[in-house]
Amino acid sequence: MEVSAFPSACPSRTVLDHVMSKWGLLLLLALSGGTKRWSELRRTVEGVSEKMLAQTLQTLERDGLVRRDARPVIPPHVDYRLTALGHELVQRLHPLMDWILVNADAIVSGEARQRIDEPASIGHTQ
Amino acid sequence: MEVSAFPSACPSRTVLDHVMSKWGLLLLLALSGGTKRWSELRRTVEGVSEKMLAQTLQTLERDGLVRRDARPVIPPHVDYRLTALGHELVQRLHPLMDWILVNADAIVSGEARQRIDEPASIGHTQ
Repeated sequence: MEVSAFPSACPSRTVLDHVMSKWGLLLLLALSGGTKRWSELRRTVEGVSEKMLAQTLQTLERDGLVRRDARPVIPPHVDYRLTALGHELVQRLHPLMDWILVNADAIVSGEARQRIDEPASIGHTQ
Repeated sequence: MEVSAFPSACPSRTVLDHVMSKWGLLLLLALSGGTKRWSELRRTVEGVSEKMLAQTLQTLERDGLVRRDARPVIPPHVDYRLTALGHELVQRLHPLMDWILVNADAIVSGEARQRIDEPASIGHTQ
């Protein structure tokens, strides 16, 4: 892949901001199991605030990745599910998330860094 | 994949924050072509500030994904490259980024949303 395909004016930057935000990603994965209600999403994606959940769902909906269905019942019943495009994207997210789950402990504990052949120099990064 | 594998205390959340940040991701991809100097990274990842570049590289270095090599020459010469673990991760990022590049225009223009069978209801997300 050509890295020059990521100039700052490229639409891919916008999509990166939406999809690759932590909450965007976790919500897409939460919906990969099927339709979910607001309250289910709030429970599944532990730690997300009401505000971030609302904002992120609206962004994903505007992007055409998530579909919102409000049923005219009392009390109100609102469902969220992936669109066909959302499903396509999630297929590309799963291998990545599987890798992160396997390697997260080693990365966060610093073990991954110690595995590198020689100690890296520490200091200011310029 | 079980979404319950992402509770808020899980180390995968931390890795998500580091790797899936826009700059983290673009830097990893920029390094997938081989070793780069600071100034090359700054040019390749268009729009990144010096501060964000320094911070993101330090995080990726601490995570064991990027290796920093400072050569004792004048003027100072600092190289960055992916570690073996970084290469593993980047292999999982490429299919995702390829998909984003192909679909970004349709998503950002709103065309992707219009493609959905019926118009989605608009309004507050709760």
